[in-house]
Amino acid sequence: MIDLAPTGDLTQDTAVARTAQNRYETVIRDGYGAGELVPNGGLLLSIAARAMADAAQRPSLLTVTGQFLRRAQPGAAEIRVEILRNGRLVMTHAQLDQGGQPALHATGVFADRSVLPQRTWVASTPPELPEPDACVSPDDFAESGPFSTPPPVFRRLDHRLPADQLQFALGSPNTHAAIKGWYRPLVGHADETAVPFLMDALFPPTFTIDGPIGFAPTIELTVQLRRPPGDGWLRYRFATRAIAGGVMEEDGELWTADGELVALSRQTALPTG
Amino acid sequence: MIDLAPTGDLTQDTAVARTAQNRYETVIRDGYGAGELVPNGGLLLSIAARAMADAAQRPSLLTVTGQFLRRAQPGAAEIRVEILRNGRLVMTHAQLDQGGQPALHATGVFADRSVLPQRTWVASTPPELPEPDACVSPDDFAESGPFSTPPPVFRRLDHRLPADQLQFALGSPNTHAAIKGWYRPLVGHADETAVPFLMDALFPPTFTIDGPIGFAPTIELTVQLRRPPGDGWLRYRFATRAIAGGVMEEDGELWTADGELVALSRQTALPTG
Repeated sequence: MIDLAPTGDLTQDTAVARTAQNRYETVIRDGYGAGELVPNGGLLLSIAARAMADAAQRPSLLTVTGQFLRRAQPGAAEIRVEILRNGRLVMTHAQLDQGGQPALHATGVFADRSVLPQRTWVASTPPELPEPDACVSPDDFAESGPFSTPPPVFRRLDHRLPADQLQFALGSPNTHAAIKGWYRPLVGHADETAVPFLMDALFPPTFTIDGPIGFAPTIELTVQLRRPPGDGWLRYRFATRAIAGGVMEEDGELWTADGELVALSRQTALPTG
Repeated sequence: MIDLAPTGDLTQDTAVARTAQNRYETVIRDGYGAGELVPNGGLLLSIAARAMADAAQRPSLLTVTGQFLRRAQPGAAEIRVEILRNGRLVMTHAQLDQGGQPALHATGVFADRSVLPQRTWVASTPPELPEPDACVSPDDFAESGPFSTPPPVFRRLDHRLPADQLQFALGSPNTHAAIKGWYRPLVGHADETAVPFLMDALFPPTFTIDGPIGFAPTIELTVQLRRPPGDGWLRYRFATRAIAGGVMEEDGELWTADGELVALSRQTALPTG
């Protein structure tokens, strides 16, 4: 009997075990889903990134992309990694299979960040937020409505949002589809391979214009890493600028509390209706 | 003797021929490079998208991602396509090999866009530009300096830029890394599979802050399509917001002349120094 209970420690909940060269097994935990989307894509991509990182043998993850093929379920899964290029950059791909069917196709690029150019030039600014203690958690917020019972995946992180960010759940939609706030791991700390999960752990930004109805399945997610998230609170900003042609993007930025850029993300999602 | 001369017709210059089920051959043309980066990554990704589109048998390309493994050269290349999921969405991956070595690993998602939700909500706005006739081409611009001899790939499109967009080449850098302008195919029209090339056909936006020095090799490029580009002039905007952690992003937006969103793109590139 495999224990599927989530620990809240992202390192433990995305752990992989090497079974042969470039082959890994994992256990997808319960509680990382939202509605029928169980578990969410970001968790699967973090698991695949862990396997690719082990095979790549480089300390830094530069970028990782996942294409979500089929819904996975909590339980055992296998990952096969292939090294496509091995040099200063190590480029890999991975396939996560469950029950003999591919659920995720992923690619990753790894390197030793310390030997790459050290220049830093950042034109974007971290989202301005009240201190975490002055924010609310989704649990605090709604006595009624969909956010009275946040989806299970919300409980895998400690979330704090400025109260005005949740007005959409009280029937006051925004005109722009954007959300900003804080989160941190419940237990332990997040390394670079945990970041794909972090970039897929919010509700769609379109909730702020449409209300909290439906979920938008992710078909592709790319996460570009700039530094490890480190310990403590992380600032995030997620936004959608265009629903058109049957798809929408969700763009994310992740920053440390003191304003260092951790990651950019973009996902392609299917809007519901 | 294979004819490597570019025709300027993007459909012809990205053509693939089916040799067996899910196997294709192509000829990478001359003249699609910049400096030592011959040909550029966008052209390879468009070629892979053509092969995946043929195998997928769906009319619309929703999103395509390429991971660039090795420099390719003009000449023959082979593409192997695998169908990873076949349903309302067809998800594929492709590998482009040259001389027995993989040069590009790509994934694509195809569908019939007409059966997807038709909702359109666009918060971004197309770049404001003077009419093409009031713009300059890179050829017109500089009597001296690096832009007196634009890289060959520039001559594969008809480019028109507002004169102020090229001040960086005259020693007047910007403080923000962004570039906007017009382009259109020299011959024929661009279909959806040509868009990856369009999203990689400009110089890096960081030229506007650093001057036109060096090129930034692309390691990954994702293009999210919203509609076919159609005929005529296209408006583009490319920008970099952060060089950090040894990588930088280049984000692009492509719009029709009358303001319909065609595509979003993001690439991960290695800054030089």
